[in-house]
Amino acid sequence: MDQPTGCPLDIDQLRAVRRSLAGQVLHTAQWTNDPLSELFGVSLQLKLENLQRTGSFKIRGATRKIASLQERGEARGGVVAASAGNHAQGVARAAGQAGLPCTVVMPVSAPLTKIDACRGLGAEVILEGDTLEAAAVRARAIAEAEGLAFLHPYDDWDIIAGQASCGLEMFEDAPDMTVAIVPLGGGGLISGIGLALKAQNPAIRLVGVQTEAVAPYRRYLTDGVLEPVPAGAHTIADGIRVKQPGQLTRQVIASHVDQIVTVDDNAIAEAMVLLLERTRTIGEGAGVVGLAALMQRRIALAPDDRVVCVISGGNVDMGLVGRSIDYGLASSGRLTSIAVTIPDVPGHLLGLLREVAGLGMNVRHVEHRRGELHVPVGKTEVILQVETRDAAHQRELLHHFARQGLPARNLLDG
Amino acid sequence: MDQPTGCPLDIDQLRAVRRSLAGQVLHTAQWTNDPLSELFGVSLQLKLENLQRTGSFKIRGATRKIASLQERGEARGGVVAASAGNHAQGVARAAGQAGLPCTVVMPVSAPLTKIDACRGLGAEVILEGDTLEAAAVRARAIAEAEGLAFLHPYDDWDIIAGQASCGLEMFEDAPDMTVAIVPLGGGGLISGIGLALKAQNPAIRLVGVQTEAVAPYRRYLTDGVLEPVPAGAHTIADGIRVKQPGQLTRQVIASHVDQIVTVDDNAIAEAMVLLLERTRTIGEGAGVVGLAALMQRRIALAPDDRVVCVISGGNVDMGLVGRSIDYGLASSGRLTSIAVTIPDVPGHLLGLLREVAGLGMNVRHVEHRRGELHVPVGKTEVILQVETRDAAHQRELLHHFARQGLPARNLLDG
Repeated sequence: MDQPTGCPLDIDQLRAVRRSLAGQVLHTAQWTNDPLSELFGVSLQLKLENLQRTGSFKIRGATRKIASLQERGEARGGVVAASAGNHAQGVARAAGQAGLPCTVVMPVSAPLTKIDACRGLGAEVILEGDTLEAAAVRARAIAEAEGLAFLHPYDDWDIIAGQASCGLEMFEDAPDMTVAIVPLGGGGLISGIGLALKAQNPAIRLVGVQTEAVAPYRRYLTDGVLEPVPAGAHTIADGIRVKQPGQLTRQVIASHVDQIVTVDDNAIAEAMVLLLERTRTIGEGAGVVGLAALMQRRIALAPDDRVVCVISGGNVDMGLVGRSIDYGLASSGRLTSIAVTIPDVPGHLLGLLREVAGLGMNVRHVEHRRGELHVPVGKTEVILQVETRDAAHQRELLHHFARQGLPARNLLDG
Repeated sequence: MDQPTGCPLDIDQLRAVRRSLAGQVLHTAQWTNDPLSELFGVSLQLKLENLQRTGSFKIRGATRKIASLQERGEARGGVVAASAGNHAQGVARAAGQAGLPCTVVMPVSAPLTKIDACRGLGAEVILEGDTLEAAAVRARAIAEAEGLAFLHPYDDWDIIAGQASCGLEMFEDAPDMTVAIVPLGGGGLISGIGLALKAQNPAIRLVGVQTEAVAPYRRYLTDGVLEPVPAGAHTIADGIRVKQPGQLTRQVIASHVDQIVTVDDNAIAEAMVLLLERTRTIGEGAGVVGLAALMQRRIALAPDDRVVCVISGGNVDMGLVGRSIDYGLASSGRLTSIAVTIPDVPGHLLGLLREVAGLGMNVRHVEHRRGELHVPVGKTEVILQVETRDAAHQRELLHHFARQGLPARNLLDG
């Protein structure tokens, strides 16, 4: 394919950049797991950037950008970035390693753990505005006023060249790959990986994955339109909740990406659980969209395909991990809430629990609601939160109740 | 130190065994994390056996044992093991790789995910008895009746030699280590690691960590007594809930281990959360006891110590992960439940929630209990489950309520 107009990066330059990152950036594991390959019916490797320093690939681009500024004698006063998460940590660490002062502007709603992480890496953290956009305005103003270099999270050739090092590692560890699957937000990662892979084997199929709620690139490859993102769009994949596609990255995407698919939050939560179960590593929502797309069969694959799927990051609030696990377990039929109405007579609750135990289910939570307004007098409603094997197991419980004339419904069904 | 009587393993043999495992066993990462080292005030590396194939170190010993049986022309009919978890998976995979039939006997209470994992690895799974001991009786009976080889989980020189490969990797990756910290259950892992390390540098201090509830070795090094374990002892570190110390391993422990400490379930849950936050990998309860001991300052360390701490496994039920996260968050002051009694008048609940939001806390769950018997008429009790920064943050909320004359108590305080 053609290089995008003005793209200054050829494969030799990408290789030189990768060499310059050695020591600061980890060559992360490319994980093979037989059961996962079996599950998807192809040879599958996961590129575990969630185990990268600072918990995501962002350290790659940030380290390159800062080195590049220093080579040109710029940014002597320091750097400034706006980010609610991974970019902030990548920049903070890269600046610290380079001995440069670093200011990070985060929205006031940024999770405490991420604020602490940036401070721990030596950055000055300023909280400003409700959105990332507002934080970015402040960051640019600071850059202007104090003569600092503003580091854009993706729309910058140095950043893209840094992220390309991930693609070079992927190809080195799987030179026979036929398909690469990469999370797509601002596009820095997929642009870098695309440039690195296609320069070495243009036949590799490159697939970008967006989150359903924020998918400006949804139809971009088919009709060239960037879809506007509704204000307030929410997704658990906050790392790729990028509303403004880059000017540079959109060019690389047009020329180097073969397909773009989307996945919703349910699928993403299920993928987080699958990743945790199979690799014992945690991926953040944005990090696992590729795995979610595989689970949802969104990408047509042949049995002889050799797939590398990037898990791009793992920075996620512990509270959210717990909730995502529950959400993923519920989505995959392993956790549900069942409401069953029983006669308000001693012994009935006991009988109910015996039933559940007999089916080999584990009870998480029981709520015995007398006095609910929708339940007839003389009856009482019990809500059972139970861990089950799968959806069939849940139906089995409902059938049991039905045979005994107890009205019951699965609260997760509509 | 002296080799235990009858120990047939010298360093050359251990090295030969390690070489024979190549290809089947991963050389796992030895993770360095600056903030963790800072937290503990020493140079710290984590040996991530939770990222090992089958999710724990057990594959090492099982692979060696099966190779050894095959070298001697034994076990042609296959192998059998009793285990509720990691040993079963290690044996199942090792047998599958060697082309041998494998039977695994598990207690009927074994988690469904572990049963499925063993079946997925090609093992025949038999559920028998309420305890591991009962499963082991059945497994030995099957071995006898069908002429299969019974694989003991730890009390076997071949198993110990296999686990020693972990110690050889640790030393290779940290030849200057001064302290090694290893989970201690049956003792197979610490025996192997001890033989490998002390043969290369007898000055390395080897510390074993048991779970408080099941600690037969608690006073073993000081007065030679093995403590009986109470029936029904419970711990979230089920992987080291081993009541019967080995005959071989106790000899190696006596001669090669310098100190044994214990940690309780609270500390273990906190360690699971810390590991997840810092390395983005999940450790099972038994896997993180070393980290828990560090967090609890159970091991005296000097600032110039160079510590390697083994995270021995990561096989844990997803439901338990979620619960452990909550438990760990609560233990470390980041999640609590507060009961506050307010006048039963419209608007008061709203005021309460405004208060909480003003302190930057995230509300997880609200329960508004009118009609609780311990609450005076005209009052109502609200239970707030909130995410907080630390214990001080929680006290701040209680002070707020106190200043307004609202009786409140932290439900986690006694």
